[in-house]
Amino acid sequence: MTGRFVAVEGGDGSGKSTQCAALVGWLQDRGIAALATVEPGGTPLGATLRQLLLDGEHLSARAEALLMAADRAEHVETLIRPALARGEWVVSDRHVPSSLVYQGVVRGLGVDAMASLSEFATGGLVPDLVVVLDVDDTIAEVRRGADADRMEREGEEFHARVRAAYRELAARFGWVVLDGSGPATEVTAALVAAVATLIEP
Amino acid sequence: MTGRFVAVEGGDGSGKSTQCAALVGWLQDRGIAALATVEPGGTPLGATLRQLLLDGEHLSARAEALLMAADRAEHVETLIRPALARGEWVVSDRHVPSSLVYQGVVRGLGVDAMASLSEFATGGLVPDLVVVLDVDDTIAEVRRGADADRMEREGEEFHARVRAAYRELAARFGWVVLDGSGPATEVTAALVAAVATLIEP
Repeated sequence: MTGRFVAVEGGDGSGKSTQCAALVGWLQDRGIAALATVEPGGTPLGATLRQLLLDGEHLSARAEALLMAADRAEHVETLIRPALARGEWVVSDRHVPSSLVYQGVVRGLGVDAMASLSEFATGGLVPDLVVVLDVDDTIAEVRRGADADRMEREGEEFHARVRAAYRELAARFGWVVLDGSGPATEVTAALVAAVATLIEP
Repeated sequence: MTGRFVAVEGGDGSGKSTQCAALVGWLQDRGIAALATVEPGGTPLGATLRQLLLDGEHLSARAEALLMAADRAEHVETLIRPALARGEWVVSDRHVPSSLVYQGVVRGLGVDAMASLSEFATGGLVPDLVVVLDVDDTIAEVRRGADADRMEREGEEFHARVRAAYRELAARFGWVVLDGSGPATEVTAALVAAVATLIEP
């Protein structure tokens, strides 16, 4: 069986980490080896960069985008590609789509510039499936809660722009958008239905 | 008076830091405000990245290139551009040419790919003058000494490839190559002669 690469995307508070864990559990229950990972931060280098990205005071928009890309390059080369080569599935909480949305659209660096930078970082690896969890603004705000890092502390307008950018780019890049506002078990059911299409008979 | 941007380049042990300091002193003696800086590491973010780059164990080639670019983006936006805007000169110990040589040629990522990445990082800023200090292999080895970091611990073949790449790309990009093998005062004399052409009468 060939490994597949699934990226789970969405704004902060959309339930990505919960759903990634549920998806990996579902795959493993079916005897499919699956690796759960996260960007930024899935590697030792990434853990350091994640601190810089999420806790740092000031970062220029370009530096932020390049640190994300550096994290991704290390992640792809040392973790994602080797797992796929072993025939395992990889479920990543965020990947290239996050950079297209946050740095490309919201920070204004341009989707094409970020796509080009991301292609360099990944060496051309593209997920087999990108699922965007689209969540009602009020629900996402409650889920984000008070214990938020630099990105999550952004205002309502920021989160609304992120959500709109995900929807817009999903149409352009063929990402699957799922309603993530309901109970976790319902969202998981929709997620595994989308993923099931990738499983070889 | 308009600020000018000079990058001093060359392999490890070529005397860059000594010559950068001498050049800044020479400019200041002429009443020209000049800022001495270094890549990687000229900003708070850069200091952290420099540690990752120079002391880190394994880094994928692409991650290394992207960290260098992130450092450069922050350096250009928070330090180099503001200094030039104030009318100061900037003398940087390494800049884009280092990435073209080390990551583009020696690590094999390609000069065009690194030029494109560098243009994103700098937002298109280009030095007014790039000086490459070209130093005899044996002399550079003595100067590097025993107290070397990860890059400097590379073998003889690595340093020979770096030197050859600097010479080759200098012809393509219009960098000025100076013989840096002689006594420091002689090298400084040649450096300031090259820089003097940039000073407005």
